[in-house]
Amino acid sequence: MSTVQQMCQAARDAQPALATASTDTKNAVLRGVADLLMERADTILASNALDLAAAEEAGLSSAMVDRLRLDHKRLGGIAAAVRDIAALPDPIGDISDLVRRPNGLRVGRMRIPLGVVAMIFESRPNVVIDAGALCLKSGNAAILKGGREAAHSNLALAQVLRDALTAQGLPADAVVHLTERGQVSELLEQAQTVDLVIPRGGEGLIRYVTQNSQIPVVQHYKGVCHVFVDDTADLAMAADIAVNAKTQRPGVCNALETLLVHRAVAEKFVPAVANTLSETGVELRGCERARALWPDMTPAGDADWHAEYLDLILSVRVVDDMDAAIEHIRIYGSDHTESIITSDYGRANAFVASVPSSAVMVNASTRFNDGGELGLGAEIGISTSRLHAFGPMGLKELTTQKFVVYGEGHVRP
Amino acid sequence: MSTVQQMCQAARDAQPALATASTDTKNAVLRGVADLLMERADTILASNALDLAAAEEAGLSSAMVDRLRLDHKRLGGIAAAVRDIAALPDPIGDISDLVRRPNGLRVGRMRIPLGVVAMIFESRPNVVIDAGALCLKSGNAAILKGGREAAHSNLALAQVLRDALTAQGLPADAVVHLTERGQVSELLEQAQTVDLVIPRGGEGLIRYVTQNSQIPVVQHYKGVCHVFVDDTADLAMAADIAVNAKTQRPGVCNALETLLVHRAVAEKFVPAVANTLSETGVELRGCERARALWPDMTPAGDADWHAEYLDLILSVRVVDDMDAAIEHIRIYGSDHTESIITSDYGRANAFVASVPSSAVMVNASTRFNDGGELGLGAEIGISTSRLHAFGPMGLKELTTQKFVVYGEGHVRP
Repeated sequence: MSTVQQMCQAARDAQPALATASTDTKNAVLRGVADLLMERADTILASNALDLAAAEEAGLSSAMVDRLRLDHKRLGGIAAAVRDIAALPDPIGDISDLVRRPNGLRVGRMRIPLGVVAMIFESRPNVVIDAGALCLKSGNAAILKGGREAAHSNLALAQVLRDALTAQGLPADAVVHLTERGQVSELLEQAQTVDLVIPRGGEGLIRYVTQNSQIPVVQHYKGVCHVFVDDTADLAMAADIAVNAKTQRPGVCNALETLLVHRAVAEKFVPAVANTLSETGVELRGCERARALWPDMTPAGDADWHAEYLDLILSVRVVDDMDAAIEHIRIYGSDHTESIITSDYGRANAFVASVPSSAVMVNASTRFNDGGELGLGAEIGISTSRLHAFGPMGLKELTTQKFVVYGEGHVRP
Repeated sequence: MSTVQQMCQAARDAQPALATASTDTKNAVLRGVADLLMERADTILASNALDLAAAEEAGLSSAMVDRLRLDHKRLGGIAAAVRDIAALPDPIGDISDLVRRPNGLRVGRMRIPLGVVAMIFESRPNVVIDAGALCLKSGNAAILKGGREAAHSNLALAQVLRDALTAQGLPADAVVHLTERGQVSELLEQAQTVDLVIPRGGEGLIRYVTQNSQIPVVQHYKGVCHVFVDDTADLAMAADIAVNAKTQRPGVCNALETLLVHRAVAEKFVPAVANTLSETGVELRGCERARALWPDMTPAGDADWHAEYLDLILSVRVVDDMDAAIEHIRIYGSDHTESIITSDYGRANAFVASVPSSAVMVNASTRFNDGGELGLGAEIGISTSRLHAFGPMGLKELTTQKFVVYGEGHVRP
């Protein structure tokens, strides 16, 4: 057996203990993690300093160095997030849909862990703790493979998880940390021991994992999010939402990328919102009809409708009606988040029913597609694939359901 | 674009019409399918005769020829199953877990189709209609790729689905039928247009699909099912269940393969059940302790504990206690179906909580792990992978949930 095989097998062997651990024990592990993060802050920050020094020597961009950086405040934030996860309800063991069949058998569905979950992520070291804590709370063993740039930080953080497990009498190998770059391709072959792979990072990483994995993958591709301003919209509300969705945090996946405007209100709305957005520093790119109303837009082409700018850039398109907006979203969208601004009851319902994205909204900013905002408590990512989970993934999305059947000597006739 | 790409794209383009079709329209399509199966019985049976003739010429086994064979009675059964699916509740559009967040946003989850589902199956032609009907009812477009041996039958049956769609004003391409053998590998690359692949057939097919698919796969591997007879079991009940689970239909995945017996009742139970099973024609293979109690057993080895016999063969092992039984299941089981026979409340609960199989039973035959028996109405297969669905997959398992968010001008602060 190779090292990777051995480590995955160790995680698999450790998982049953976690699957049957009580909620109290799992929460004690998580509170232990939070405590250790504080107790070992100096050691962790010293490890992080090694990564930061290497990153600067290697000439990484200041944005990347900043993502890598830990300090006392950030560590405190990470510990607080772990305590929040400890406070969430435990989904494991819940039985739902328990029915009595005509023959007297009682049949229900019990929520159980997925088993062994592998996270492959780029350089943000907080993912070690966030992902590890969500996996442990949901009874899953975790295999963590972080970016090489954060190797020292990740090692120190993974050790916190392992030590917190053993302190509660649980096997340390319920968290396994892979450190070598070449181990990813081998990890993706361990379908015998690993149940799910979640890649978190750039499109290249996600594509590589999807194409090479023998293990099921939940993907989080890009977010090309849309707001459609209907002709019955409250235009002041529409402008507020467009500005918020574009500018409140432009670098994230649920930020607005394309604004679709019903032609009946375009003449009034486009200049108004374009004015506000320009003043906020947003660069506008528009279709011909939009540019006719606000000439200070670059012409937008197919590449713009497909673009996830993740920046203060917005494309604007005037459409004939709601159906044309839905058709645009179907062609150019990424199944992430779309919102309609309308005061029409029927259109609100039709838009929600017709648009097949992970979150479909009425009169709200796309920025609400987030595990915390939608009430999941914490998220391990936002899935844009339809299998297993679609949208923000919280604790429940790290579980599955098995059938439980209670008989009294039942046999099939 | 290749033919396969074009056909998958056609299915994808057709799917939105199905996703938003009313329940009445979808049910009318299904009733149309049932009617057409009866109206066209002679044509369908003529096509089937071509396949049967070719199969006999090619020297296929009589069991395989029988699986291929259609007649008026079997067609009537297929039509009745489609009418049953029409009568099931439509899962699409249901909103669950609708909550009001502290900021007044209302957030829920709406059930939606997966999108485009590909079925790759071996020679049983009834799968064309069964799978097609379940996909259509759940709003999914279906790509059907059957075995070459049933090519003529499948073509005639797929045409029934397509004609029933157009009769209700829905696009025929919501059902696409691939006929060429070489198209499977290309189909497995169409991740842009296909959301899920379900292989149904032998282990070789499932392994090939899993290893080569860029599209998520739900697998149905083998069923190595166990019954554990606890020392508190009603031994008459235990014998009834063991005999039923082994012999009621030995060739299916939820049939019993290994009987585990608590050592405290082995002396009494093993000879009694072995006697009954032998009289029914079951060949027994046992561990040393079992053979000491009933010498007429072949010695069982590792290969037996791993075996899915699908035949009148049963392996028997005496174990020290329930934990040893659970450990045996963990090592040799296939996550399919296990049952404990016990009168002890605590052990029943512990067994159900600890065994991570798709169906875990108390005092019932493993043969109940079946969509119909568990109340799903109809099934497209039994998943032994934990992602997305685990156990029998009915209409609900062919859907996913998106978030729906109702605001009143909400923006993120």
